[in-house]
Amino acid sequence: MSERGKLIVVSGPSGAGKSTVVFKVMEQRGDVCFSVSVTTRSPRPGELDGREYFFIDHERFQEMVDRNELLEHATYVSNSYGTPRRYVEEKLNAGFNVVLDIEVQGARQVSEKMPDAVKIFIAPPSLEELERRLTGRGTESPEVVRGRLDRARQEYLEADFYDYLIINDDAGHAASELNAIITAEHCHFSDRAQLLRDSH
Amino acid sequence: MSERGKLIVVSGPSGAGKSTVVFKVMEQRGDVCFSVSVTTRSPRPGELDGREYFFIDHERFQEMVDRNELLEHATYVSNSYGTPRRYVEEKLNAGFNVVLDIEVQGARQVSEKMPDAVKIFIAPPSLEELERRLTGRGTESPEVVRGRLDRARQEYLEADFYDYLIINDDAGHAASELNAIITAEHCHFSDRAQLLRDSH
Repeated sequence: MSERGKLIVVSGPSGAGKSTVVFKVMEQRGDVCFSVSVTTRSPRPGELDGREYFFIDHERFQEMVDRNELLEHATYVSNSYGTPRRYVEEKLNAGFNVVLDIEVQGARQVSEKMPDAVKIFIAPPSLEELERRLTGRGTESPEVVRGRLDRARQEYLEADFYDYLIINDDAGHAASELNAIITAEHCHFSDRAQLLRDSH
Repeated sequence: MSERGKLIVVSGPSGAGKSTVVFKVMEQRGDVCFSVSVTTRSPRPGELDGREYFFIDHERFQEMVDRNELLEHATYVSNSYGTPRRYVEEKLNAGFNVVLDIEVQGARQVSEKMPDAVKIFIAPPSLEELERRLTGRGTESPEVVRGRLDRARQEYLEADFYDYLIINDDAGHAASELNAIITAEHCHFSDRAQLLRDSH
């Protein structure tokens, strides 16, 4: 893999099936990987440092923010999460298309720091279907489900800066679209013009 | 097929294998077709009006030019060729992705009249390989081959307004890239934003 990979930012409501779609694409092609985030929260049983997350303390996290070492970051309750720029760059240079599964606000931050990032919004076929999926899990209270639906509506209003929209009515079909987008993004004339000059 | 198709402009040197690549994609998906050009030249044995070309006289051709009924047109020796806008529009509205196999100058004309056209340049892996392919046909004189190579060099210099570049080192691989580009172009956020609003 000599060609530099693409940074693929994926957003969408919880319950849209983002992970399922990305994992399907990973099965289809070996040049796609998830980024690994840094977090200040403690590892849960079974989590490995460098696999699920890079586990760091608040002091180191703040240092990374100050030194512009994070492509985006956010704090939920008392825990902070961020995307380490160096990790992403190393993977891109190794030829991997690096997927960031992040929220709309984070996508906006990444987009400013990495204008070449490919921004893909994955949505369920309808909010009714999203409600069914979230309720069907049986793990979320009605209040949580309602909160997620409100959040989805808000995200839809802010999503117009994404490059692509995939409606996940069928995970196999959605994965084939994501796969095609990654392939097509590598075919841009500007990325390949050197090949033409070399063959001149 | 309810979604409007995309206009796909394909250019590249004679011998780059454009037709082979497009025909392979047509085998893979039923929503791709070639446009049918108008021409003032006479039908050759076996050619059918409306299949290979629409055969028209010089007077009608000039009328189509004057009425802006052609997306692009060009004259070679004493025969004129052009792409009829209405035919293309009907196919696009029927959901077909319509492929125009035209030269760089024609692509520029189409691009001005149809800014949404997807412009793809298909090139051989090298000019040496192009020379081998053209010579290997055994039908072209050395002068013709040399002329085609000069023309290819000139086209490369003018090709920077294309959206995508496909290097046809292997027709199967090139077809998979063209296929992916067509799929990805249908996933653009701006084309699908209405789906998100409808599901709101």
